[in-house]
Amino acid sequence: MKNTCHTRLALLLTYAMSIVSSFPVQGSPTAVGSGQLNLMPVPASVQMQPGRLPITTNFTVATKGYADDRLRSGIARMSRRLAGRTVMSLPFDLATDAGAATLVVECERGGSPVPSLNEDESYSLEVTDRQARLVAPTVVGAIRGLETFLQLLQGDREGYYLPGVKIMDQPRFPWRGLLIDIGRHYQPMEVLKRNLDAMAAVKLNVLHWHLTEDQGFRVESKKFPKLHSLGSDGLYYTQDQVREVIAYAAERGIRVMPEFDIPGHSTSWLVGHPELGSAPGPYKIERAAGIFEPALDPTREQTYKFLDGFLGEMAALFPDAYMHIGGDENEGKQWDRNPQIQAFMKEKGIKDNHALQAYFNQQVLKILQKHGKKMIGWEEILHPDLPRDAVIHSWRGAASLAEAAKKGYNGILSAGYYIDLIFPASQHYSADPLPADSTLTAEEAKHVLGGEATMWSEWVSPETIDSRIWPRTAAIAERLWSNRDVTDVEDMYRRLAVISRQLEELGLTHERNYPVMLRRLANSENTVPLRTLVSVLEPVKEYRRYQMRPQTMLSPLTGLVDAARPDSDAARQFASMVEGFLSDAPRFRLYRSDIADSLNSWRGAGTALDPMIDRAPGLHEARPLARNLADVAAAGLEAMAYLSSGDAAPAQWRDAQLAKLDEAAKPKAALELVIIPSVRKLVVAAAELPSAK
Amino acid sequence: MKNTCHTRLALLLTYAMSIVSSFPVQGSPTAVGSGQLNLMPVPASVQMQPGRLPITTNFTVATKGYADDRLRSGIARMSRRLAGRTVMSLPFDLATDAGAATLVVECERGGSPVPSLNEDESYSLEVTDRQARLVAPTVVGAIRGLETFLQLLQGDREGYYLPGVKIMDQPRFPWRGLLIDIGRHYQPMEVLKRNLDAMAAVKLNVLHWHLTEDQGFRVESKKFPKLHSLGSDGLYYTQDQVREVIAYAAERGIRVMPEFDIPGHSTSWLVGHPELGSAPGPYKIERAAGIFEPALDPTREQTYKFLDGFLGEMAALFPDAYMHIGGDENEGKQWDRNPQIQAFMKEKGIKDNHALQAYFNQQVLKILQKHGKKMIGWEEILHPDLPRDAVIHSWRGAASLAEAAKKGYNGILSAGYYIDLIFPASQHYSADPLPADSTLTAEEAKHVLGGEATMWSEWVSPETIDSRIWPRTAAIAERLWSNRDVTDVEDMYRRLAVISRQLEELGLTHERNYPVMLRRLANSENTVPLRTLVSVLEPVKEYRRYQMRPQTMLSPLTGLVDAARPDSDAARQFASMVEGFLSDAPRFRLYRSDIADSLNSWRGAGTALDPMIDRAPGLHEARPLARNLADVAAAGLEAMAYLSSGDAAPAQWRDAQLAKLDEAAKPKAALELVIIPSVRKLVVAAAELPSAK
Repeated sequence: MKNTCHTRLALLLTYAMSIVSSFPVQGSPTAVGSGQLNLMPVPASVQMQPGRLPITTNFTVATKGYADDRLRSGIARMSRRLAGRTVMSLPFDLATDAGAATLVVECERGGSPVPSLNEDESYSLEVTDRQARLVAPTVVGAIRGLETFLQLLQGDREGYYLPGVKIMDQPRFPWRGLLIDIGRHYQPMEVLKRNLDAMAAVKLNVLHWHLTEDQGFRVESKKFPKLHSLGSDGLYYTQDQVREVIAYAAERGIRVMPEFDIPGHSTSWLVGHPELGSAPGPYKIERAAGIFEPALDPTREQTYKFLDGFLGEMAALFPDAYMHIGGDENEGKQWDRNPQIQAFMKEKGIKDNHALQAYFNQQVLKILQKHGKKMIGWEEILHPDLPRDAVIHSWRGAASLAEAAKKGYNGILSAGYYIDLIFPASQHYSADPLPADSTLTAEEAKHVLGGEATMWSEWVSPETIDSRIWPRTAAIAERLWSNRDVTDVEDMYRRLAVISRQLEELGLTHERNYPVMLRRLANSENTVPLRTLVSVLEPVKEYRRYQMRPQTMLSPLTGLVDAARPDSDAARQFASMVEGFLSDAPRFRLYRSDIADSLNSWRGAGTALDPMIDRAPGLHEARPLARNLADVAAAGLEAMAYLSSGDAAPAQWRDAQLAKLDEAAKPKAALELVIIPSVRKLVVAAAELPSAK
Repeated sequence: MKNTCHTRLALLLTYAMSIVSSFPVQGSPTAVGSGQLNLMPVPASVQMQPGRLPITTNFTVATKGYADDRLRSGIARMSRRLAGRTVMSLPFDLATDAGAATLVVECERGGSPVPSLNEDESYSLEVTDRQARLVAPTVVGAIRGLETFLQLLQGDREGYYLPGVKIMDQPRFPWRGLLIDIGRHYQPMEVLKRNLDAMAAVKLNVLHWHLTEDQGFRVESKKFPKLHSLGSDGLYYTQDQVREVIAYAAERGIRVMPEFDIPGHSTSWLVGHPELGSAPGPYKIERAAGIFEPALDPTREQTYKFLDGFLGEMAALFPDAYMHIGGDENEGKQWDRNPQIQAFMKEKGIKDNHALQAYFNQQVLKILQKHGKKMIGWEEILHPDLPRDAVIHSWRGAASLAEAAKKGYNGILSAGYYIDLIFPASQHYSADPLPADSTLTAEEAKHVLGGEATMWSEWVSPETIDSRIWPRTAAIAERLWSNRDVTDVEDMYRRLAVISRQLEELGLTHERNYPVMLRRLANSENTVPLRTLVSVLEPVKEYRRYQMRPQTMLSPLTGLVDAARPDSDAARQFASMVEGFLSDAPRFRLYRSDIADSLNSWRGAGTALDPMIDRAPGLHEARPLARNLADVAAAGLEAMAYLSSGDAAPAQWRDAQLAKLDEAAKPKAALELVIIPSVRKLVVAAAELPSAK
């Protein structure tokens, strides 16, 4: 049976290769053929076929070849989502007659029960008007394929169906992760679970669980209970809960890699165990954001004994092959001031703090090796003495990753994937762990394992975290799974909107909490003008939020800056219309009325907000933004009038408007009006283009 | 210290009584004085005072007198919500200087750590421009008062504040519950927790946890593990989870009363233990909705031995004084057909199934007594042989409750509070456990302990359940807490809208999941016309849904009927405008343009839906509703034209329109267009009123 299965798979794969070579996938590969598909990440190869497979209440699934509980659960979850989306009562029991089933899933083996970096995640999916056949060497590959199956669902007057298609798929990189920092802001179990569901939906395969931070030690240690009991405000995961998360992830073919960030970022450890610190205690849980001085003492035997005990306990709890030791942002100030540490360095000939940390890492590496784990750490751990089997996690850029690869280190990329920095999806989408201009040899390139989006949690609560992760992380997931030449930003955004909606069926709250937050801020059911304002605002980028609006980890994250999203659809669409409008010179007809409608609604909202803000003190900080919105819209409308009339605007008018726009472009309440660049284009064009025509 | 506290409380209470008598609370008691308050449930006595207490980042809370962890947690939760609502970073540590604190909480004692029917929940709250003082005999009373404190928050140009006020409050009934049936549809822990938060927000104090049903046995039994392992599809609460729910509820002063429904509604028990049944097995978990035959065998000693073991285990797990044994809807068909049972009845002189069930109840009562529990059951258990210390749970009406009270039984009311039947809040609001026309003596009336809203779960999923419970249950909570004469429906709806929004801050999803469901149905971001349609639809009432749209417990609850809500705001507002408009005869000016706007938007939506429905097969069943909406709106617009013109519409036109409305009034897809009665009034008036003028 297995053999048959395998042979068929081999045949199908051979066939697929010929498709790939004869139909090279380029540009907008999901729009191939007659229909427009909404697949994300884009599969390695997609070929449209004639016919369509109707999805009716007679829908059934059968397995062929290998099947286990994980596969059956995956099929049941898919069926439940299919039923929910189609509002059809579907049978949940597997069909016995594979020949008659709507979907047949053929696997060869289960794959590693503990998800592994070496897992075969490939699959093929063929849909004809008679049946869909999902073939995969492993159950994990089948689980990936089931997500593609669901993404293929379409509907029209005749009902729901899947278009005829042949898909051959496998990931470009084996390590495709999402880091969730639950140190700075704890997240309840359901947040983790729904995000694991979302990760599976876009074929991510590593949850990097950042479990300890200055602001919280969030995992139960039975060996050293003071760690979590004194370091977490009671907000930690019990070991049972950890096992629950690991099992939940494994069901979905997702690794769970823990991070215990040392020697820096360790204030919360020291609350219960000040003896591990490089300065005398007592220590308190950190409430601010930033880089802090506390660091473990790398010179004392006691430190390593403790770490041996603790990391050993964690190594038994977390089955993943890798353990992340952080290692970032330790500036060594406590070390500099500690005479005993200075004496130790002198004695051992350790020339600086970087070398001292390398020494520390070597000791930690031995501990991890003793407990059967491979070490990974932030790129600061890179040092001539670092053994070659450590993995480098780059947060500075693909260049440092390449440098590590040339030295023979495996590495993953997070530079470019810092979703906490509030950049648009398009920007993350352009970051490639192995860019086209890479100078790595094929052999060196193999050291580049993939990447991870990083959800650092200074400014996210359970209410907002999904909106900071999704949908943008789906674009990163595509970068890590799909071919390098899948780079059409417009098509990415088109599909992202569809996938974002589908994520909601998994309970994700990135969209649903938005109106809730606006209602609370407005203290009213009627949020129309507020929503119009917020739709063209984005939180300030990078690390400017804290400077502009200082808060602690105990502050509420319910403000306007928390409600606003990172990647304004309205501003992007407006920018695209303005571009079209200006390219339509000298007629200036294209999108003219749409642009005017947008500008009018913004001007109206800016005015309508005043009485709303009066009643809602939480919105008081929005007042200058509302005025700016009205002013910017008015400038845009005047520019449109010039452009439509054909008379050039006076230079004086232009300069006055540009000055106004510059003023409005200054962030307020840690928010930016992101339509300003487009309005600026209109103003400049109003003064220049008509005379040019 | 305690003594001082007590004296002050006594003084305050004496003072309050004088207020109550000199300022009788009538009609819209929350609108007393200058400001309009949004308190729900309305307190026993509210007196506006001059001044206001600003809420700033200097906000602090101090305790005086008795304080314990439960009180401190309650204060911390309140502070966190206050911070979230005001977007202010507030200190979370208690202040030490009570004189300077913004809010002082003075308690006398902790109250029962296991919430009890006899708990003193009273409190008083006085707000001046200097301080708010919350005084309560018990921590539970203080927790109730903290909710009132939060409901008092208001905002304007000057910022957030509490208006000056003196409130003396205690509940009318000691038993104010919400039944959640997790038998038919399991609900995850977070659903229970957020609903406990919402219950606390409106001062409900009993979670009636309906744990077993034909469709699921949902609590872990360590003694009889086949009960949950075979009877639940794996969807049950572990005993640890049960303890977690109980502790979570107790923190909020909420009792958790379990129900184990016997002898009927017990199919799921029999899957693992067919030997308990009155007919030979095997049994399967029931998937349909309805009343089913399986019932425990009341004639065998083995049954009682089993129940002794199981209920004993549960009695130890659940600390509440009461245990609900269900007892409803056993039609005894299995008993009729079982010769051994028939022989037993003959031998014992048991004349019918009702008497046999009474016999069963007596045995169960003995078991409960042995394990220290008081028995409560649905009103079927009422029988001449029923001992007086059993509590009667009425689902037929206040009359049967009164009858029981006259016989000396304590009782609670659920008739009128069946929120699963999709009636509007106003209807539940009018049901009173002890109506004004009650003929009970004062002594008998004491037997009426209160009531419970019942969330039977045939047609609710974790996604929709909140929308079936909230906000309507807040109106029931008010009925059970507030004075009998608090009956102003319009004012209730005004406050309900505010409270509903505040419930969202606790994570409730009754509003936030609505647009998600519409997006999924429409398979689009743009749901405007669909939302317009659904805003004037309500699911069919009572038990008609299953007849019109048969489904099982495994069917998806993602259809239009699931998205639609029970109590259309749009229809209620339209009805009120039409009433105003018609009362403005013969001018017919009042609300004329608002009514026309509504009708036009409905007509437009009806038309705009067609292409949307084409693309979304899940919406195909909405097509006749969309057409009806357009037709009904057109009829309304024609009627408005007649009324505005002053010419009477011809009788023929009227009859044709009424026939059309009758047709449109027929439910489709288990949904009703609820604007039809108002449009009918317009049509009739168009034909009659102008001639009458």
